[in-house]
Amino acid sequence: MCQLLGMNCNVPTDICFSFEGFCARGGKTDIHKDGWGIAFFEGLGCRIFLDDQPSVSSAIAQFIRQYPIRSMNVIAHIRKATIGPVGLENCHPFQRELWGHYWVFAHNGDLPTLVDDKTGFYRPVGQTDSERAFCHILNQLRAAFPNTQPPIDVLYSTLLQITQTIANHGIFNYLLSDGQYFFASCSTRLYYLIRQSPFTSAHLIDEDLTIDFSSLTSPHDRVAIIATSPLTDNEMWTAILPGELVVFREGTLVRATAHVS
Amino acid sequence: MCQLLGMNCNVPTDICFSFEGFCARGGKTDIHKDGWGIAFFEGLGCRIFLDDQPSVSSAIAQFIRQYPIRSMNVIAHIRKATIGPVGLENCHPFQRELWGHYWVFAHNGDLPTLVDDKTGFYRPVGQTDSERAFCHILNQLRAAFPNTQPPIDVLYSTLLQITQTIANHGIFNYLLSDGQYFFASCSTRLYYLIRQSPFTSAHLIDEDLTIDFSSLTSPHDRVAIIATSPLTDNEMWTAILPGELVVFREGTLVRATAHVS
Repeated sequence: MCQLLGMNCNVPTDICFSFEGFCARGGKTDIHKDGWGIAFFEGLGCRIFLDDQPSVSSAIAQFIRQYPIRSMNVIAHIRKATIGPVGLENCHPFQRELWGHYWVFAHNGDLPTLVDDKTGFYRPVGQTDSERAFCHILNQLRAAFPNTQPPIDVLYSTLLQITQTIANHGIFNYLLSDGQYFFASCSTRLYYLIRQSPFTSAHLIDEDLTIDFSSLTSPHDRVAIIATSPLTDNEMWTAILPGELVVFREGTLVRATAHVS
Repeated sequence: MCQLLGMNCNVPTDICFSFEGFCARGGKTDIHKDGWGIAFFEGLGCRIFLDDQPSVSSAIAQFIRQYPIRSMNVIAHIRKATIGPVGLENCHPFQRELWGHYWVFAHNGDLPTLVDDKTGFYRPVGQTDSERAFCHILNQLRAAFPNTQPPIDVLYSTLLQITQTIANHGIFNYLLSDGQYFFASCSTRLYYLIRQSPFTSAHLIDEDLTIDFSSLTSPHDRVAIIATSPLTDNEMWTAILPGELVVFREGTLVRATAHVS
């Protein structure tokens, strides 16, 4: 299994604080030491840092922890290899282009019976079940909407159906973004919180580190953080229900299986 | 216009020395200050570092200059924006997946009359003529060989035809790799050299820096370096002829328009 971390905001925000605690799970406070990666959307562009070293000892992770990259959509992942050997091609997040936009995906879980769709347009480069699932999602979305991205309601219901089909093959918690919408799907375990005014201080679980967000934010800011398990011990995290697909945009929950806010 | 740097080797090699001189052209010894990027293939995987800051002052470039990443195929680019504004989505190299492999591309030149192929599978995310040309190459390759990568002779002749068509729209020097083969196409200006035993020392043009490769290599090593203009002033660089498409594999020139070695 692996660990997921995501962020979706209404203003470009750095993820240094959350990433600090998250990194500790890659070999220090947890066993996910078979590589890591982080994707930052910036406008239409996206940059992804990948490494097959444990995140606690990775020089690139060390650099990212100290270098604030401001983004409105971030997906990070630390890996405990199950299907597919340790190697750069098996590090999440994965990226492909669909409808003229980059799509980024990271997965927590196991899909042991999901087979490659060798006739599909998108094909895995590595050996993970996760990249296979990502290609499956994109192939099905492209088959349903060959030319342009549909409205969010239509996209949401199609993605939910695809997700349910894939989830029949095992455990399928994932984060997916096109740089605008941020999808978080829970199969067994996924949490989120939304930080907004009035901002307070937060304390990490995995490192003894506290930050006072009230001194770093403006009243208009909204930041959604999504993670496999809560990163802080003094904030109210919400469990996403198994089977639930939620969508964030600009730090706001805009769609969920059970309810629409 | 922009600057290109590529490396193709038979053993994983770091590019720190060449990148040091190359980076200086991004705002110090030359005017290419509108962003930069570098892609490293490692096995089937690939990692790309992109930044819309000038390479001489970029914190990420500073990190890469000091952190040796060993790779057999590297493509780097520094940008002087002509078509498409400064922004992360317009930084080269660009990456897409074709036939289950990552393909990476960077361009020097201008293709002012090349239009978007809006019916193609691969679509540009940014606004550059360069990404448009890359998508055009991949769309045509996929149309010719829908399922699997053809043998290199067939791939080479198809790519040469596609290249000649695109080059009719302007200046089209480019580097392209799938992590195994390394294609370098010259429209106006591109050089290469092959470092092999007996190794000597090399001195950069853009920085006063000398390296003695004989102390860092084994007799079996072969490294091809490809660049818009020579990076060293005491080695023999070969000009690729305008209209010529050359292919390297494991540090050896394996195909060229004018001759086959």
